[in-house]
Amino acid sequence: MNEKLTIAGRQFGSRLMTGTGKFASNDLMRDALAAAETEIVTVALRRADLSGGQDAYANILEYVDRDRYLLLPNTSGAMNAEEAVRLARLAEAAGLPKWIKLEIHPDPTYLLPDPIETLKAAEILVKEGFTVLPYINADPVLAKHLQEAGCAAVMPLGAPIGSNKGIITRDQVSIIIEQATVPVVVDAGIGAPSHAAEAMELGADAVLVNTAMAIASDPIRMARAFKLAVEAGRDAYEIGLPQAQLKASATSPLTAFLSE
Amino acid sequence: MNEKLTIAGRQFGSRLMTGTGKFASNDLMRDALAAAETEIVTVALRRADLSGGQDAYANILEYVDRDRYLLLPNTSGAMNAEEAVRLARLAEAAGLPKWIKLEIHPDPTYLLPDPIETLKAAEILVKEGFTVLPYINADPVLAKHLQEAGCAAVMPLGAPIGSNKGIITRDQVSIIIEQATVPVVVDAGIGAPSHAAEAMELGADAVLVNTAMAIASDPIRMARAFKLAVEAGRDAYEIGLPQAQLKASATSPLTAFLSE
Amino acid sequence: MNEKLTIAGRQFGSRLMTGTGKFASNDLMRDALAAAETEIVTVALRRADLSGGQDAYANILEYVDRDRYLLLPNTSGAMNAEEAVRLARLAEAAGLPKWIKLEIHPDPTYLLPDPIETLKAAEILVKEGFTVLPYINADPVLAKHLQEAGCAAVMPLGAPIGSNKGIITRDQVSIIIEQATVPVVVDAGIGAPSHAAEAMELGADAVLVNTAMAIASDPIRMARAFKLAVEAGRDAYEIGLPQAQLKASATSPLTAFLSE
Amino acid sequence: MNEKLTIAGRQFGSRLMTGTGKFASNDLMRDALAAAETEIVTVALRRADLSGGQDAYANILEYVDRDRYLLLPNTSGAMNAEEAVRLARLAEAAGLPKWIKLEIHPDPTYLLPDPIETLKAAEILVKEGFTVLPYINADPVLAKHLQEAGCAAVMPLGAPIGSNKGIITRDQVSIIIEQATVPVVVDAGIGAPSHAAEAMELGADAVLVNTAMAIASDPIRMARAFKLAVEAGRDAYEIGLPQAQLKASATSPLTAFLSE
Repeated sequence: MNEKLTIAGRQFGSRLMTGTGKFASNDLMRDALAAAETEIVTVALRRADLSGGQDAYANILEYVDRDRYLLLPNTSGAMNAEEAVRLARLAEAAGLPKWIKLEIHPDPTYLLPDPIETLKAAEILVKEGFTVLPYINADPVLAKHLQEAGCAAVMPLGAPIGSNKGIITRDQVSIIIEQATVPVVVDAGIGAPSHAAEAMELGADAVLVNTAMAIASDPIRMARAFKLAVEAGRDAYEIGLPQAQLKASATSPLTAFLSE
Repeated sequence: MNEKLTIAGRQFGSRLMTGTGKFASNDLMRDALAAAETEIVTVALRRADLSGGQDAYANILEYVDRDRYLLLPNTSGAMNAEEAVRLARLAEAAGLPKWIKLEIHPDPTYLLPDPIETLKAAEILVKEGFTVLPYINADPVLAKHLQEAGCAAVMPLGAPIGSNKGIITRDQVSIIIEQATVPVVVDAGIGAPSHAAEAMELGADAVLVNTAMAIASDPIRMARAFKLAVEAGRDAYEIGLPQAQLKASATSPLTAFLSE
Repeated sequence: MNEKLTIAGRQFGSRLMTGTGKFASNDLMRDALAAAETEIVTVALRRADLSGGQDAYANILEYVDRDRYLLLPNTSGAMNAEEAVRLARLAEAAGLPKWIKLEIHPDPTYLLPDPIETLKAAEILVKEGFTVLPYINADPVLAKHLQEAGCAAVMPLGAPIGSNKGIITRDQVSIIIEQATVPVVVDAGIGAPSHAAEAMELGADAVLVNTAMAIASDPIRMARAFKLAVEAGRDAYEIGLPQAQLKASATSPLTAFLSE
Repeated sequence: MNEKLTIAGRQFGSRLMTGTGKFASNDLMRDALAAAETEIVTVALRRADLSGGQDAYANILEYVDRDRYLLLPNTSGAMNAEEAVRLARLAEAAGLPKWIKLEIHPDPTYLLPDPIETLKAAEILVKEGFTVLPYINADPVLAKHLQEAGCAAVMPLGAPIGSNKGIITRDQVSIIIEQATVPVVVDAGIGAPSHAAEAMELGADAVLVNTAMAIASDPIRMARAFKLAVEAGRDAYEIGLPQAQLKASATSPLTAFLSE
């Protein structure tokens, strides 16, 4: 169907990445991941069983089949580069894949990413051999810096995390896509299947959806809806979409049909 | 998956209606209709074989399997109620279904529908026993008049025909959906799968897509993309979507993860 | 500064029309009208002193200096053509100007205008010699019908009355402006000075503002703000504005400035 | 009228900053600045007479009355922090004010600012005693870093320079305004008076306009239009604007007016 997605030399059949937060239960999460037919699943390190301790979420990893999914640890909750780097190293030490979704958001209200600390952490982690996918504001120049620093992809936001606002950064994301040589994954803000389709139509290589799926009244069915929307949007991108125009263009020939 | 669509007492499994204009060939059209899994296909009366004459499109009906699709004749090209009513009667006389997509657009530039003539024609045709689906501007009060006149559905535009602008009448369409007691079909302007998904998420009962499919470099694959998008959008509507909000909502718990 | 506005052969120096509803007091209304430097003031017939009765608003006309303002009676509250026509005749009988802002909105939730009844009433009132300015949905074909019926202007809505949403019907309003031979006045939805400026930049001949001014904490100052915005937007339209484009265009020369 | 604007302890009566690029002549520029009633005028260092050489623009400073305007040198054209810092020091050495509009945009297509190099240069220049106003992407976290580094204001873009797209970063700019403790000046993208008014209504402390004024067919009149729009938008912000809502809110009382 869709062309394969390649990140850091690894191929994926699905362009829909998912998260593991906010599901009502681990069983529900597992079934939603299956329905999404996702191949990349991100998990907050805080929730992963790194410690063997009493964390309620300690056993989340038991629910994510690592033969089926690439587990993508994320540094959600890190306030600066130092914390993010520490988390990434903990993950590696615990045997998780050496891939890291870099999230550094010091602001608790909007959870917007920090461009300075993110670049700093990316440079360190790339040097240590991590495959780094940074979550960023839709900033084309920052995206270039991260690409030049060796990141495997860039993950600009469509809108603040959990806002469900869609791709409000549409023009900026389009510039990133136009200029990037690494895959562009739209992350955050995607609250409806139409948003996911729109991101793909713009030419994004993938999207990451979590909240809209996890808190839905029927996460499994919603996961499938996002899967369909991502495929539809990507299909349209690969086929090619026409430009919008103000003038109408008749579908039917309008020549004097009543003269016959 | 999706709930069935009911129009005038008849049930349909698909919520994607299609047109027959602008395809490069009739073979291509037939295959695209199949890929769309549509169940309602509209055809301009001008192009249908009513006369048995030499029209290049004369044999379009041979390509639309009437056991599989409801053939929905349309009055595209009609400049006023009189012309539209005449066309509808011709269609009936020629043995076409007594369903009519009422299109009256006197303006050649934007092909916008005429509210006055449309209501006039609708009243006449309903009385004559037609199942009438009028194409209209996104005007909630007009939609009510047509509903009260006995129309089986209303078909507000998302944007001018062939403009590919999407649902620029979003707020007005939402009001129509909120107030209508007949099905609401968004017609015109839908240029990408994300637009179709968005219309369904708003609560439209169906969408009609023609240009974006017919002129695509690969109409068959584009037809399938629209099919997926419509299903995804409808799924999301049936499940229920959250409101957009400006404040972020963390996907992952942010409690002092580094304190452990 | 701005070109004069001509409606029905009468010239106006101001392109900002105002209403008289919702002000906290009649004194405040009078001072806001003065600050707006408006020349056309609409008043709901219901609130005008037609009866000499005990209506709290009965004396509103004492606060609108008829040497300074053209008083434009409106039929707000009319549910159909008959009611609107009756109101217009009452106004004339009471000695008000034979100008009428035709408003027919049967729906109490969104107060959207009725295209069918509006055209019907317009035809009657034009024949009776009224100067008719109908409030309509942003429907270009309806606008043409009303123009052909002899209306002196058309007043498409930017968004529902009192919604403060701005010009959400932007594309449709642009088509009306492009095609109209009578003045186009954007009415309803204008909740901020930027909305008024935008309407003027699109080429509207005037705007009507009421709610945003009347319910402001400081109506007099807000009236002045709208006055400035209307002048600014009209200036820009008369001068000519550039198209939006995605690519940047450097303000400063970027040639190798450090090489010198 | 409007409240005074204070930047770095200095008060300004105008909230409209202007640039000096792209005017057809220096005379025209001088007259447009006067019509804008601006008090802060930015000039690209490349065009200022620093060298005493043969630069066609060498005498631009003779046209900007320094008793009337604060001359704000900018580093437009700088590709990195080093170049920007060098330009700022040259300006100081040449006797220009120790205020600097920091612009670092390595990309020639969209002229988007570089967050990393901008922060680096800002830290250096603040330490050297400059009053620094950085041009940035609409990135709230970056804005905070620059504020903490001692910048006197932040200047987020509404859209790429010269694009005339308006405030497409509306949500992000709103967050910056909500969180900033220094003035927020919207810079770039403002192509029409309505855009300037919108920025002010959002709560921006000032806007900077150059291209839209300089390339207008009548720059002097356009300058005045922007002046009016900025005042109108600021007035509205200070008075307070209502929220947009979908439901209508009647301007006129709708109680049974025909029953009397």
